[in-house]
This record gives sequence, structure tokens and C-alpha cells, in this order.
Amino acid sequence: MHPNLKLENIRNVLIRQEETIIFALVERAQFNHNEIIYSPDGIPIPDFNGSFMDYLLHGTEMLNATVRRYTSPDEHPFFKNLPEPILPAEAYDYPIKKTDININDHIKEIYTNKILPIMCDDGDDGQYGSSALCDVAALQALSKRIHYGKFVAESKFLSDKEAYISLIKAKDKVAIRKKITNKNVEKKLLERVALKAAAYGKEIDITIPEQETQKQKICPQLVADIYEKWLIPLTKDVEVDYLLVRER
Amino acid sequence: MHPNLKLENIRNVLIRQEETIIFALVERAQFNHNEIIYSPDGIPIPDFNGSFMDYLLHGTEMLNATVRRYTSPDEHPFFKNLPEPILPAEAYDYPIKKTDININDHIKEIYTNKILPIMCDDGDDGQYGSSALCDVAALQALSKRIHYGKFVAESKFLSDKEAYISLIKAKDKVAIRKKITNKNVEKKLLERVALKAAAYGKEIDITIPEQETQKQKICPQLVADIYEKWLIPLTKDVEVDYLLVRER
Repeated sequence: MHPNLKLENIRNVLIRQEETIIFALVERAQFNHNEIIYSPDGIPIPDFNGSFMDYLLHGTEMLNATVRRYTSPDEHPFFKNLPEPILPAEAYDYPIKKTDININDHIKEIYTNKILPIMCDDGDDGQYGSSALCDVAALQALSKRIHYGKFVAESKFLSDKEAYISLIKAKDKVAIRKKITNKNVEKKLLERVALKAAAYGKEIDITIPEQETQKQKICPQLVADIYEKWLIPLTKDVEVDYLLVRER
Repeated sequence: MHPNLKLENIRNVLIRQEETIIFALVERAQFNHNEIIYSPDGIPIPDFNGSFMDYLLHGTEMLNATVRRYTSPDEHPFFKNLPEPILPAEAYDYPIKKTDININDHIKEIYTNKILPIMCDDGDDGQYGSSALCDVAALQALSKRIHYGKFVAESKFLSDKEAYISLIKAKDKVAIRKKITNKNVEKKLLERVALKAAAYGKEIDITIPEQETQKQKICPQLVADIYEKWLIPLTKDVEVDYLLVRER
């Protein structure tokens, strides 16, 4: 099996991505909700059709595309019609099947409408640029994590080919979802993520005794909830979608 | 005094910036040194004169400039000739004197030649885009922190005007530097930064008992050293430079 498809290696990648995701969420949580930056009519931008946050996300993706970010099998853009890479194409190791699965619209919708309102303080602090740049980092990290479901699914498929093929042929989404689910791994993940959020979101002030520094920059349970309610289910959506087209 | 110039408020801003800096360093430290991305001849980029990292830094600044990042008194670009903002100018509260002090070339040189070689594992892991994007985040955070010395200096100046004016008139750099130095605050900062780096760089693995998880994604003392050797002295450079032009 390709080393990138060994379940243990995939888990290590996903665990390392937790830091990136939590750092990005902690950074974003320091600013208010600033709702205006998500509304297409909020801050009018000349020659751009979308919100202020979309403008920065799109600009970032245009730049990233020129250095061929989106030719990598684990990267998925939020926007279409990005520029061609200015660097010569790299012969990527492509251990998964090529598909056009990309649920970034859905990820952005959930991030904007579900996660931000519970994660940030209400109101407007005027920190639009800083907030939106944190959003870009968070969305890119979430997208990468969720679409890594393709690697997870390929790995699981290869380790139990026959069983998957019969479920895929029967188009039995419910059974596929059940088969890819490992409740024990999920439970550990949620525990670990809450511990990480507690450690990385801790306010550290040496003038206050350790036991009194209860302030957190982000609620650890909130991060675990984000994983439980959205990240894990969305990753499974990608896994199921991938498996269904894997054997077409 | 303007609230942004109260020393206590400035210290809170600097303390919050520590998280951003440490997160960025921890993120960068997961990749190898990848020296090729800092050499102007390393990865040839069509129509761009500079390194791969410079290309991404420049592209990011061009995008950021369009949303008027660099009209803010606490932001300083690494590149010149950036595009004009596409948003209408904002009436910024500008509580410090306008100067053209910008030591970003020096900051980039130290980051590239001093910090990266001791922070990252040697060698090349091919993660050029990811590494360079972490560099952009780190450089922007370092630049913001160091140039915040202008606010620090203005605050100190206002709280002891006469003494500063006589030192400035005498162009006594050594005495100015001595006067802005608070060894006690520095000592606390270094302690706090090492504690933060220990907390935020901690590997968290629930399958290993707490006392055995000694692995760190970045050495806490290294982060304290970076502050002691470079961040604090460079901030003081900015403070001194600012004071010298403050009363011209």
C-alpha cells in the first residue's frame, strides 16, 4: 500500500491538522463576529461580486493557484476559474482516484452561518481585514481536513475491498457510512481536540497563580462540538461520496 | 492620553501578539528548512525578481494593500510599490507621529538567516508552498510586533517628556536606549513567552500518560531566545529611531 494511504499515517496527518485548525479558530475568536464582512452587500468592492471575506479568500486562492497549490491531491479551492500555475507542473504522487468532489461551498456555508456565530462575540469591532484573513486560514485548514476524507476512504477501501465493492454496487449509503465509522476513534479524537483547545487557547499570565488562570481564548468544549457536529460528519460525507464514485 | 497609548493597553496588545507569533513559529517548525525557497535563484519564477518566498510575500501584500492594510498605523509592508486601496480611505485614529521608519528588510534578513536555520530541521521536504505561507504569517506577525515599538516609544515619551526631549536633542542614543529599557518587564516577558511556547507547542496524545508526553513541536527556550536576541532588541531599535525623529 502507498505510504500516504496507511491508516496510521493518515491519522498522523489528521492529528497534525488539528493544531492548524485550532490555532486558526483561536486567532479568529479574538475578534468580534463582524457580520458585515460576510454579506455580499456589506462592503461594496469595485469589480468584485461577493463579500469582503470572499474577496480576500478569492485573492488568496488566485495567488496560491499560481504556485500550483490546487494541483496537489489534498487541496481544494473554494473558487473556480483560478489562474494557471506559473511554475512547471510537478509529477505528483497521486495515490487516490481523481474525482471532482469538492464540498467547499457547503463548508463555507457552515463556517459562516453556524461556527462563526457561536465562536465569536457578537458585534462589530472594525477589525475586518484581520478577521477575514483569519477566516481564510480557518477555511483552508477545514477544507483540507474534510477533503482528506478521500485518503481515509481509499485506505479503508483497500483494506477491505470486497465488502466495500458490494456496498458500493448496491449504492447503500447508510451501510457505507456505518462501515467507515469507528466510534472509538471518534471518541478519542473528541477528547484529544478538547485537550488541545484547552492547552492552545489558554491565557498565560505569570502574574496570576496557575490555578486561578481559568480564562480561555476559546471554549475547549466548543472546539470539540465543532468537530463532532460538523468536521467529522462532513469528512464522512466526503468519504461516502468518494467511495460511491470510486468504483463506477 | 489616547487610550491606544496607555502603556497598559500597549502591553496587552503585545501580549496578544505573542500568541500569533508563537502559533506562526510552531506552524513553520513542522516543515524542514527548505533553503531553496529563500534563494533568488532557487526556484525561477517568471516575471518576478526574487525568491519563491518573496513571491508569495509580495503577492500577499499586494492583496492586503487593496483592502488598505498598510494605511493602518500599526502595519508596515515589506515591499514598495504596492497597489492603491480599492476601498475608500478610512479616517484612522493616528495617535503616533507619522514617520517612514520601516525595518522590515532587516527583520526578513534575521528571520531568514538566523531564526529559520535554528528553528527548522535541516533539509528539504518539498513542502515549499506550505513553508512559505507560514513564513508570510510569521514575518507579518514579527513586523507588526517590532514596529509596535513606535506606540511604546510615544507612550513613554508622553509620560516623561522633558527628560526625553533633552536626550533626543543631545542625540544620545545610548542614554535613550537605557531609559526605554525595563529589565523587569523583559524578564517577565521571557518567562511568559517560554511558558506559552511550552503550552502551545505541546504534543497532546491521550494514549500516553501526561508525564511522558515530553515531545514539543518547538523548543520553548528557543522561542524565548528569539525574543531575547532579536524581537526585544529590534523593537528597541524602532523605539530609539522613532524618538530621534519624534522631536525633529
